[in-house]
Amino acid sequence: MSTYRAPLADMTFVLHELAGLGQVAALPGFEDATPDTVAAILEEASKFATDVLDPLNRPGDQQGSVLQADGSVKTPVGFKDAYTQYAQNGWNGLTKDPEFGGQGLPQLVATPVEEMWHAANMAFDLCPLLTQGAIEALELCGSDALKSTFLPKMVAGEWTGTMNLTEPQAGSDLAAVRTRAVPQGDGTYKVFGQKIFITYGDHDYTDNIVHLVLARLPDAPPGVKGISLFVVPKFLVNADGSLGARNDVKTVSLEHKLGIHASPTAVLAYGDGGGATGYLVGEPNRGLEYMFIMMNLARFSVGLEGVGISERAYQRAVAYARERVQGRAVGEAAAAPPILEHPDIRRMLMTMRASVEAMRAIAYVTAAALDNANHHPDAEARKRHQAFAEFMVPIVKGWCTETAQDVTYTGVQVHGGMGFIEETGAAQHYRDARIITIYEGTTGIQANDLLGRKTARDCGAVARAVLGDIRKTASALSAASDVQLHPIGSALSTAADAAEAALAWMLANFQSAPRAAFAGSVPYLKLWGLVTGGWQMGRAALVASAKLASGAGDAAFMHAKIATARFYAQALLPQAAALSGQVTTAGDATLALEAAAF
Amino acid sequence: MSTYRAPLADMTFVLHELAGLGQVAALPGFEDATPDTVAAILEEASKFATDVLDPLNRPGDQQGSVLQADGSVKTPVGFKDAYTQYAQNGWNGLTKDPEFGGQGLPQLVATPVEEMWHAANMAFDLCPLLTQGAIEALELCGSDALKSTFLPKMVAGEWTGTMNLTEPQAGSDLAAVRTRAVPQGDGTYKVFGQKIFITYGDHDYTDNIVHLVLARLPDAPPGVKGISLFVVPKFLVNADGSLGARNDVKTVSLEHKLGIHASPTAVLAYGDGGGATGYLVGEPNRGLEYMFIMMNLARFSVGLEGVGISERAYQRAVAYARERVQGRAVGEAAAAPPILEHPDIRRMLMTMRASVEAMRAIAYVTAAALDNANHHPDAEARKRHQAFAEFMVPIVKGWCTETAQDVTYTGVQVHGGMGFIEETGAAQHYRDARIITIYEGTTGIQANDLLGRKTARDCGAVARAVLGDIRKTASALSAASDVQLHPIGSALSTAADAAEAALAWMLANFQSAPRAAFAGSVPYLKLWGLVTGGWQMGRAALVASAKLASGAGDAAFMHAKIATARFYAQALLPQAAALSGQVTTAGDATLALEAAAF
Repeated sequence: MSTYRAPLADMTFVLHELAGLGQVAALPGFEDATPDTVAAILEEASKFATDVLDPLNRPGDQQGSVLQADGSVKTPVGFKDAYTQYAQNGWNGLTKDPEFGGQGLPQLVATPVEEMWHAANMAFDLCPLLTQGAIEALELCGSDALKSTFLPKMVAGEWTGTMNLTEPQAGSDLAAVRTRAVPQGDGTYKVFGQKIFITYGDHDYTDNIVHLVLARLPDAPPGVKGISLFVVPKFLVNADGSLGARNDVKTVSLEHKLGIHASPTAVLAYGDGGGATGYLVGEPNRGLEYMFIMMNLARFSVGLEGVGISERAYQRAVAYARERVQGRAVGEAAAAPPILEHPDIRRMLMTMRASVEAMRAIAYVTAAALDNANHHPDAEARKRHQAFAEFMVPIVKGWCTETAQDVTYTGVQVHGGMGFIEETGAAQHYRDARIITIYEGTTGIQANDLLGRKTARDCGAVARAVLGDIRKTASALSAASDVQLHPIGSALSTAADAAEAALAWMLANFQSAPRAAFAGSVPYLKLWGLVTGGWQMGRAALVASAKLASGAGDAAFMHAKIATARFYAQALLPQAAALSGQVTTAGDATLALEAAAF
Repeated sequence: MSTYRAPLADMTFVLHELAGLGQVAALPGFEDATPDTVAAILEEASKFATDVLDPLNRPGDQQGSVLQADGSVKTPVGFKDAYTQYAQNGWNGLTKDPEFGGQGLPQLVATPVEEMWHAANMAFDLCPLLTQGAIEALELCGSDALKSTFLPKMVAGEWTGTMNLTEPQAGSDLAAVRTRAVPQGDGTYKVFGQKIFITYGDHDYTDNIVHLVLARLPDAPPGVKGISLFVVPKFLVNADGSLGARNDVKTVSLEHKLGIHASPTAVLAYGDGGGATGYLVGEPNRGLEYMFIMMNLARFSVGLEGVGISERAYQRAVAYARERVQGRAVGEAAAAPPILEHPDIRRMLMTMRASVEAMRAIAYVTAAALDNANHHPDAEARKRHQAFAEFMVPIVKGWCTETAQDVTYTGVQVHGGMGFIEETGAAQHYRDARIITIYEGTTGIQANDLLGRKTARDCGAVARAVLGDIRKTASALSAASDVQLHPIGSALSTAADAAEAALAWMLANFQSAPRAAFAGSVPYLKLWGLVTGGWQMGRAALVASAKLASGAGDAAFMHAKIATARFYAQALLPQAAALSGQVTTAGDATLALEAAAF
């Protein structure tokens, strides 16, 4: 069996060498994020992930969360205890405002910590993940009264949060939301409606749950411009902060899902008993805007789930490949080696490894940009980092989650027949991962965001700036005195050409042929993921080569980093041309068939 | 909900226009395969698939097969009845020797029929699939006594067959088989050992089960040269054909699997009570050779499972995309269309559709080659067809099963959040499909076969002949008067260049750098699948264009075929260059990491 060990060496390398932790820690307000403190945090987090969360992952999958006859939800054995420890250890407030009890650390520092939770037990971590988003929305948009009532408890992890967007007729299309909120004249509202796919919509971890709910006021305009955001707690809160009456929200059912069985996905009914008491967040009819604020971070976090679960699948596959003895390795004389020696197993493990490292790098670099966008003293720099982060978030979400499908798929394959047997654990990663390209906006939604809002709207300005940086890295690789880096530079340069061609085609055709453009939006997103991943692997190879030259750092780690970057460049980056070709030539063919012909 | 409808129009087109049913039906012994008879068979099969097998697929998944306290296996409600109907309708003997009650039809005719079973209920069809392989082995290698005892019952479907290869320490590596067979001096043997992953190793469909078991004789040489094949029936058979004593084979357990829950995957213990009575098939120590005979057809059938389950996933996705109303279609004014109108949904459905059509085409063309290899009156032609079929079988198995992963993945994605909910059914296809890249030889095993036995051994002769045919098709497309075909021709030509480069690299490096060659074997296999699929889509487009010009056939079908071929050429074929690039440049990088660095 495989035990999860946080990849602290690679996390630390990426934090310091690629994402610039030193620079982030120098931003106003982040003085506590010293290298020693960060190292201690990662060390503690890794223990919690290995000792507490990882062992619960498989039993959690087997037991699942259950809706009981009394209407309450029971989570798997051990999950409530784990959650209590998690909250008591202060993990929930890592990045949160110290005013409400948080530790005010950079998102960059929280990122490897979250990656560990996702890797060790994604179904567990969904509860904190959603709570983070709810906190974010209240911090940024809530009134002082709402903040003081809810935020200290939520930051401490004593209460959890949910996001209630989806309704049966309104999935990706929030314009179709029908849930109603009726003002009561006392500043409160009565909420009526049904919400589906509510992650941790009910559970037994905490005394209270703070639902953030999209609903329409009676006089609201139609469509997305008439949606408001409400807080609807499971239990009302008395003036002294103690819990009051049970609110009128009921768990109708839990979904039977392909994966993340431990995470209860609820259908919630609001107002069946006369109306659920809710409180408006911010201004009326601006709910969608607020939702996007919390969604941005949630999308980033789901992308990070792709990194974490891929790392977990990789570790499990490596462990199996080391212990499983089978066959004769091609080109090797000795009989019965571990399957790790078979060239095709090497190809699979290298694909998993290179993908994980590239995903991790773009995610952490994006986290650093989010920190700079919020904390940099210079307005121009904030704007620049904000633009980069906005460009990258749909890529991190879309590409890391799609790549995680391949990685967890390959993890099963490395196990051969055992991979199909649930006891092995590889299949669970494959099942659990399947949701991440769907929730918090499908890959199609991310791709439309990347193409429409993040590329076409600024006429490709940010995209071109990123390409410029990529070309600089490619040039540095090609000009390096270390000849190992040359093929990485040339592959990256070719991939940048492919991205540039796709970008040019999109900019030329977005207005005149929008359907053909959007028919290529997902290949366009994958292309950017692949190429920015290659960019970061190229940067990593440059750093590793310099460290080897100067004798700094762990030489074995640096050699492995360069080898992995070369594999990424030679085995994976060539896909860029295919994706670019699909963008620039296949739009018409994609749309050519009559609807009736399907 | 979606109901499976056999794609009779495409099946018929591929049978006649690409696979040459007319030519196959003209071979000696296949006179019964007239167009009318074949059409009637497909029509009847499609009814059985739609009315009987498809409705059992989801309940079968939910109930699963269960090992009961008395040691017997209970299959899901309705499966035994369905099997009885299947056998009574004569479906089991379609291609089998009339001497034993079969109908002696071409494999090509059985191929669309089998595709329907796979599509409607893969877990059900695994029982007949394995029985076919067992019949094949007995037909070709068994003594007259074994044949007359077992074949009539097996061909009629009254008894089923299994293939017992795998043991805990011997998965892909049959050299490690330890099961023993001890001669009893009366022509029988006592068999001792444990076999795992035995599909339909026990069930309640029939009175008897005929196990084909690999085992070692006491004096056998080590490795694969010391393996013999035995028949070990669940119940011994008396001289008058009636059932005798229960044999010493016990079901130890059933596996808990990711998918195909209705199909019981058994651990079987032979000889715990003194020895299981077995009968040698053919000559001692030639078991592996016999196993390969039945494996060849089984591998083809598993490739066809990829076609069937992909078609099923495609139909389910189309049905959902037609009925689900959501959002505003990019570039379209009207509100709330079915999601079928969204460009990204189109991209997904076209990818599924084009993949299914290409897979079907290469599978049926390979089936025709198998028929010609066995029945062509000219020895030279038999040899040529045999060589082509041997080249194609690992491609059909490897590429169709890998492509089915993408197709069933995309089927879930089209459903959005509903795709992750088991009730929807899309997730079951995704889970069920996951085994097919593993059993009957993983994709890595297929790729090693394609590279080692089917490419390097004849110095690329067959591969080059196939490439020559592909180039002829590309030229015909590029020179066609119908300009729609030109981009298909040029994409196919570019893809053929990529395949040729990979072939040349493999031939140049196979001897000198075998590990680097095998590190690229799976990309090499996928490249061949992609390109031969494009070749057949190109041939289909040529036929469709000619039919449109002459006014023959269903014009809407022909237009759709050309549009789908164009999508395949422009959206999917560009991946050929990436796969070729991985083969020709990434071998060293794949193997560069020290084992300890993983």
